[in-house]
Amino acid sequence: MTVPDPTARTARRRRDITVARIAEMAGVSPPTVSKVINGHAGVSTATRRRIEELIREHGWQRRPERAEPATMVELLFRALDSLWALEIIQGVEETVREAGMTVALTDMRGGHTPNREWVDRVLTRRPAGVIAVSAMLSERDHERLASRAIPVVAVDPYGEPDHHMPSVGATNWNGGLLATRHLLELGHRRIAMINGPGELLCCRARQDGYRSAMEAAGVPVEPALLRRRPLYVEGGRAAAVELLALPDPPTAVFAANDLQALGAYQAALRAGLRVPEDLSVVGFDDVSLARWADPPMTTVRQPLAKMGAAAAGLVLAMAAGERPEHDRVELACGLVVRASTAPPAR
Amino acid sequence: MTVPDPTARTARRRRDITVARIAEMAGVSPPTVSKVINGHAGVSTATRRRIEELIREHGWQRRPERAEPATMVELLFRALDSLWALEIIQGVEETVREAGMTVALTDMRGGHTPNREWVDRVLTRRPAGVIAVSAMLSERDHERLASRAIPVVAVDPYGEPDHHMPSVGATNWNGGLLATRHLLELGHRRIAMINGPGELLCCRARQDGYRSAMEAAGVPVEPALLRRRPLYVEGGRAAAVELLALPDPPTAVFAANDLQALGAYQAALRAGLRVPEDLSVVGFDDVSLARWADPPMTTVRQPLAKMGAAAAGLVLAMAAGERPEHDRVELACGLVVRASTAPPAR
Repeated sequence: MTVPDPTARTARRRRDITVARIAEMAGVSPPTVSKVINGHAGVSTATRRRIEELIREHGWQRRPERAEPATMVELLFRALDSLWALEIIQGVEETVREAGMTVALTDMRGGHTPNREWVDRVLTRRPAGVIAVSAMLSERDHERLASRAIPVVAVDPYGEPDHHMPSVGATNWNGGLLATRHLLELGHRRIAMINGPGELLCCRARQDGYRSAMEAAGVPVEPALLRRRPLYVEGGRAAAVELLALPDPPTAVFAANDLQALGAYQAALRAGLRVPEDLSVVGFDDVSLARWADPPMTTVRQPLAKMGAAAAGLVLAMAAGERPEHDRVELACGLVVRASTAPPAR
Repeated sequence: MTVPDPTARTARRRRDITVARIAEMAGVSPPTVSKVINGHAGVSTATRRRIEELIREHGWQRRPERAEPATMVELLFRALDSLWALEIIQGVEETVREAGMTVALTDMRGGHTPNREWVDRVLTRRPAGVIAVSAMLSERDHERLASRAIPVVAVDPYGEPDHHMPSVGATNWNGGLLATRHLLELGHRRIAMINGPGELLCCRARQDGYRSAMEAAGVPVEPALLRRRPLYVEGGRAAAVELLALPDPPTAVFAANDLQALGAYQAALRAGLRVPEDLSVVGFDDVSLARWADPPMTTVRQPLAKMGAAAAGLVLAMAAGERPEHDRVELACGLVVRASTAPPAR
C-alpha cells in the first residue's frame, strides 16, 4: 500500500498560484501574505482570515525546502489522563530532544478535534510536524497544515484510521492472540474476555486475536463469556462480577487493559477466589500498575514509549522531505508472564 | 518575607554594560551579539560561547519590556513517571493555553540538573518563562536565564527550596495533620506512619504534621511505628509487613503517598486482615488509583493541577514584569474520606 502523500492533492495546483497572486486577490501587499504564511504578528484577524481562505481555496503550498528550521514538534493528545499517555510522551520527548528540538504539548481534554485556534497557533509556531494521539483533525486542519508543509502522524487512533496521515500503533490482534494462547497452553478452556468499547479499533483487534486463538485450539467462543465495558477498573470489576456469577464461570479472564484486569482481581477477591489459583487474569498494556499488583500481573506489553519514538521519527523524516514507506507502522506486543496466571484447578 | 528578585543582583551592573561594549570586548559586531541574545542562528559555537561568557561576567541583562512576545512556557520535569506528573502537566497546560501560548516539555529522566544544551536551546526558544518540577537549576543556568529576563518558578522541590526562584507547593504539614487527626477522631491510638525518603522536604512536612496531631491528642509517637521507604507500592508493602508483625501492631496506617497506601492494603490482605475493619489506611495525593482501590481509599488530596496552574500563572505574571508577592505559594490539601478508614475493632 502506498502512502497518501499529503502534498499530492495540491502539488499540481501549487505551481499555478503564487504569493503575489494571493496578495493581489486579497488586496494586500506580498509581505503581508508572507507574514501570515510564516505566522508573524502585525496582520489583523480579518485580513489573516481572508488570506487563509485564499490559501485554502487556491491550494497554495509552501515548498518544504523553503521552510525555516523548526525548533519543535507538536504533540496533540485527545486526553492526557493515563499512565498510557505518559509513556507515549516519554518516547516522543526523547526522540525530539535528541533531534535538538522540543515538544509542544496540547491536551484536548477529551475533545475529538482541536479548535480552530489551535491550528492558528500551530501555524505561528512553525513546528517540524504534528503527532496526534487518539485525536482527529478535520479536513480543513489537514489542508492548512499541508499548505505550510507541516506533516502529521497519528498514534493509535481510536476509530477508523484517517487516510490523510500515516499512523503508528501496536500489533493489537497479535497481543490478543498471545494472551489467549498462553491461557490455553496452561490448560484453560473457559476463558472469558473483558473488552473495551467496540468503537475502539484496538479493542476490536484484541478481541479478534482472542477469537482466533480459541478457534485454532478448537474451543468455541461462548457469547456469555464476552463482555464490553469502559477501560477502567470499575468496568473490569463489574464485568468480572457478572462472569463469576455465571452457572459455569470462567477459570481465566483476558482483559483489554491492565485497569480492567485489576478490576477482575477485585471481583475475584470479593467472590472469595484467589488469583491465580482459582482465577487466572491477563491484562494488556503493562503500565506500572501491572508490576505493582498483588500478585504481579501477567499482561501483554504494548510498546508505548517506542510507539511515541516511532511517531516522532516518522514526522521528523517527513519534515526532512522523506516519504514514509508505509502508511501504517505496527510495533510488536509481547507477553509478560508474571504471577496472575496458572493452570486451572478443575 | 520578600522575594529574591532574580533581576536585583544585576540591576546595578546592567546599566554599565551595553551590547556595543560586549561586541567590542568579543571582537565582533553588535548585530552578532544581538543574534546570540535573541537565539538566532548564524553564529559559530566558539563565538557564541565567548559572548555568553562576557554576558555572564559583566552581568548584562535584557530589559523585560524589550523582549519579543513569547509563544511558550518551558516545563522541565525531573522525572515524567507518575500520575502525579500528569496532573501537574494538565494544570500548567490549561493556564498556558488560555494565555495563548503552548507548553514546551522536557523530561530530565531522573537527572538532578539539566545539561548545558538544554539552557542553550531554551535561550533559542525565548519562552515567557520556565517551570521546574522537582528540578534544580545551577547558579550559572539561573544567571543565563535572568540575563534574558526569563523568569523561573519551581513546583514542589524535593530538597531545600532554592532561594533563587519563587516556588509553588502544597500544605504538606497540614495534610499530615488532617490525616492523623481523622484517625485519632475515629478512636485510633496506635497509628503508624509510612514515610518517604527523609531528603524530600514534602515528606518531612507530612511527618511533622502527623507528629503534631499525635502530640496535640496526648498520644506519644513510638519510633517503632515510623518507617521510611521509597514512595512506591513495594515500599509501602514492605513497611506494612514489618508493622503488622510487631508484638503490638498498629490499628491504622498513614502513608506518605497513595502508592505506599496500596502496598499497605496488600500487606493487610496477606496477613489475613480486612481494610478498614482490621486496619485503617490513609494515603496522600489522591491520584486516580485511590478512587479505584478496593475499598476506595481515604486520602489527602494534593491539588496538583492547581499547583501547576498557579506556577504557570506566576511565571506569566513575572514575564509581564510583575514581582511575585510571595516567594512561596502553598495550596491547601484536603482530606477525602472514602472507605479505607473506620473505628478500631479493639
